[in-house]
Amino acid sequence: MTLTLGELAAQLGAEVHGDADCELHGVGVLHDAQPGQLSFLANPKYRKYLAATRASAVILSPDDVAHCPGNALVHANPYLTYARAAALLHPLHRPAAGVSEGAWVDPAADVHPTAHVAPGCVVEAGTVIAERAIVGPNCVVRRNSRIGAGTRLVASVTLCADTQVGQGCVLHPGVVIGGDGFGLAPDGQGRWERVPQLGRVVIGDDVDIGANTTVDRGAIGDTVIHDGAKIDNLVQIAHNVEIGEGSAIAGCTGISGSSKIGRHCTLAGGVGLVGHIELTDNVHVTGFSMVTRSIDEPGVYAGGIPAISHAEWGRNFARIRKLDEMAKKIRTLEKQLAELAAQAGRGD
Amino acid sequence: MTLTLGELAAQLGAEVHGDADCELHGVGVLHDAQPGQLSFLANPKYRKYLAATRASAVILSPDDVAHCPGNALVHANPYLTYARAAALLHPLHRPAAGVSEGAWVDPAADVHPTAHVAPGCVVEAGTVIAERAIVGPNCVVRRNSRIGAGTRLVASVTLCADTQVGQGCVLHPGVVIGGDGFGLAPDGQGRWERVPQLGRVVIGDDVDIGANTTVDRGAIGDTVIHDGAKIDNLVQIAHNVEIGEGSAIAGCTGISGSSKIGRHCTLAGGVGLVGHIELTDNVHVTGFSMVTRSIDEPGVYAGGIPAISHAEWGRNFARIRKLDEMAKKIRTLEKQLAELAAQAGRGD
Amino acid sequence: MTLTLGELAAQLGAEVHGDADCELHGVGVLHDAQPGQLSFLANPKYRKYLAATRASAVILSPDDVAHCPGNALVHANPYLTYARAAALLHPLHRPAAGVSEGAWVDPAADVHPTAHVAPGCVVEAGTVIAERAIVGPNCVVRRNSRIGAGTRLVASVTLCADTQVGQGCVLHPGVVIGGDGFGLAPDGQGRWERVPQLGRVVIGDDVDIGANTTVDRGAIGDTVIHDGAKIDNLVQIAHNVEIGEGSAIAGCTGISGSSKIGRHCTLAGGVGLVGHIELTDNVHVTGFSMVTRSIDEPGVYAGGIPAISHAEWGRNFARIRKLDEMAKKIRTLEKQLAELAAQAGRGD
Repeated sequence: MTLTLGELAAQLGAEVHGDADCELHGVGVLHDAQPGQLSFLANPKYRKYLAATRASAVILSPDDVAHCPGNALVHANPYLTYARAAALLHPLHRPAAGVSEGAWVDPAADVHPTAHVAPGCVVEAGTVIAERAIVGPNCVVRRNSRIGAGTRLVASVTLCADTQVGQGCVLHPGVVIGGDGFGLAPDGQGRWERVPQLGRVVIGDDVDIGANTTVDRGAIGDTVIHDGAKIDNLVQIAHNVEIGEGSAIAGCTGISGSSKIGRHCTLAGGVGLVGHIELTDNVHVTGFSMVTRSIDEPGVYAGGIPAISHAEWGRNFARIRKLDEMAKKIRTLEKQLAELAAQAGRGD
Repeated sequence: MTLTLGELAAQLGAEVHGDADCELHGVGVLHDAQPGQLSFLANPKYRKYLAATRASAVILSPDDVAHCPGNALVHANPYLTYARAAALLHPLHRPAAGVSEGAWVDPAADVHPTAHVAPGCVVEAGTVIAERAIVGPNCVVRRNSRIGAGTRLVASVTLCADTQVGQGCVLHPGVVIGGDGFGLAPDGQGRWERVPQLGRVVIGDDVDIGANTTVDRGAIGDTVIHDGAKIDNLVQIAHNVEIGEGSAIAGCTGISGSSKIGRHCTLAGGVGLVGHIELTDNVHVTGFSMVTRSIDEPGVYAGGIPAISHAEWGRNFARIRKLDEMAKKIRTLEKQLAELAAQAGRGD
Repeated sequence: MTLTLGELAAQLGAEVHGDADCELHGVGVLHDAQPGQLSFLANPKYRKYLAATRASAVILSPDDVAHCPGNALVHANPYLTYARAAALLHPLHRPAAGVSEGAWVDPAADVHPTAHVAPGCVVEAGTVIAERAIVGPNCVVRRNSRIGAGTRLVASVTLCADTQVGQGCVLHPGVVIGGDGFGLAPDGQGRWERVPQLGRVVIGDDVDIGANTTVDRGAIGDTVIHDGAKIDNLVQIAHNVEIGEGSAIAGCTGISGSSKIGRHCTLAGGVGLVGHIELTDNVHVTGFSMVTRSIDEPGVYAGGIPAISHAEWGRNFARIRKLDEMAKKIRTLEKQLAELAAQAGRGD
């Protein structure tokens, strides 16, 4: 889509510096943008590219206007403004409303006429698919599930029975919601017996779930993901977990059963949480950490094994690389001390 | 389904305390159960909820009967009894037998008339699907695979050619069985050449495999998962691995090629096993451990990197947080010793 | 397929020792092979099985010919020769050319007549599927994607819009290419706003991607996987990552956004790379390592957290298990020194 700088400014609540009639057709990064593209400067380390950029306009903060030789769109939050501008210039592809030939929809499913169901989908009885929802190719929506207004299942998503998904969510390909939790009872004779997993998965509004991520249904109560939570690819969320509003979880992370993550938390990639613990609001866990106990103070936590504070970990971790040296120093001290003690004993 | 306490007791081999005619319609946790629901007490830390529970009956051990003001179902193993009671009160939904319209089944596939094949499935030639098996929506069963009696492929499961699955198994959505193992031969000139993966995956009876877990086919011989093994979500099982009877593997774990896990082992979440090692029976590995060598003694193993005993690791790991302090103490000792030695030399 | 030892030798550029007319029908490992099978000896630790093998012929290096009592195929690189021989004896199953009944192909897709599209596939408009490509059951190929000549999507693979895949690639079941990257802009009021992911995924020739692996599309530019790269199962490759030619990445590894891996690198299983770092060519990272900074020297890197050299890590890691002992030694030294200083003070 083509928009002028002035039109963008009006829609984004930003201020134009330069030519408001300049036409923009797309976006590009500063050092690589072409004429006709809009770029942005959010990180000061890229300021060096500002002088030579070929972008037709740049989104930047008031502080950077002076450095910009060309057109600019000025806003206090350039990255957010870029995100919104890019969405305006590249509107989402919307397939036509209706159930496609090649989809298999049970007559007892309730699909809103403005929703889209693509070929290869299987939609079972008792399901509700709300207005403007998009169910992409080869998705499975099992019985008694509900998909909220405007939510998109991109493709090859599987919702098991009773799954509730709110409005405006995006579920990427390969996502599985509502598989059984890993609930096993030992029978005392070496066999595991399945514990029926009777809860549901309940997902709020504006939640994103990345490719091949899995969210298990609750054992008795529900697994709950609150509004605005964002989950990356290949994340495992076990039964009865609760993810607070606006929390973000990066790829390859695993959260064990019944753990609760507060609001506005972030977990970096490859994190592991043991079960039955609780993270309060505004807890940030750095990559590859294993969190083995509850955290009741907001802050940044890190560590190979228990989550310890970033500063504490940094100080100690650096020493791991000195361990061999430390051990040798101890041996030297022991020898010197023994000699000194012997001297003292001999009265040298 | 509704059952009386007396009917449940008879089916579960448990003893009724209180009203055997009390009707139960479902299950709930002690502190949250509603009238008409059955609850259980398996962990003493929840005993405090017993007095006030609204559940119509509680499954508990003989030791806890005295604490229970209402109806009880008494059994030495309350959690196992709960699992079985829940299965009786919430019987599995069974789709109608037969191949659905919307499934694509090769005429040279052998599907038992009591089995169910859902819409969107592709079942290739040479396949055998035994009695009462359920192949849920959008599954793929490639040529010469075999699915045993009563086994369920929940939805969107892919079995590659030649896969053998026993009886009474459950494969959750997104499971991939029989993809090629990661077998590569360097050609000496910087290229990797594929090593044909010619083995199969052979899965025993009563095996569960969680959502989006992958099990690779063997390179020459087979990858084998024995009876009663339970595998959680997003687990990777490489070519020629063998998982012993009744072993349980939690989510996000990866097992490298040709490693063997004994019987009745447990691996917690996020564990990694290098290739070509062997774990004897009854080995238990704690979360986020990397196991780099064979383990030939039963026991609990843990550790950030090599699997070391829980006690040994605990003692040492606590010290990591003291490393900075230890290094400073060594420096102090060195100084003090140098001073003392200088004194001694001077004969102070 | 049956081939004589002489025919194999001719096709493989190897030398026959023994009976060139010996017929071979398949392959087996040395200690388990049956008559009629071809085996190989690539690792000296299996030389002990050579004398008693029942294999009809063994591929081995010139150095091992003297130890071989039976027929041999001699080549300087026995494992590579085995890989090629196995491919000749077990040629890939090729389905018939054409679009199957039960596939849903948009009229505006361009499928080469020699390509195969299996039942249950959805192929959208603007797609190009080149000669001899195989799109297995239940795959999704979204609009404007391109699949190169001879490439195989095994089954249940999802290519999002605009994905480019080169020639001779193999994508295993459950692979998702081109899902949105994890790009979020905080709106300053506790909400995450989606940053449109406008780039593509571009995959070169001869690339393999393992089951349930995910590769995200670029945010602005593309995510790029170069020729001959080999990627195992359950790997996460974030937006704008670049994987160099001939690099191999083992299972359960995660690579964060905008990181670049050079040519001929290897990452073992369970590795994590933070974002925006660069690994030069010929870097080899050992299992379960987290790489937190760029590496500009070829070599082997390891470590629980930062990638440090193998030798350095080994020396120090061994000490972690001695930490408790070290701490006790320091306490002993402190006491002895205090006593000695007291003695000296008293002039004992």
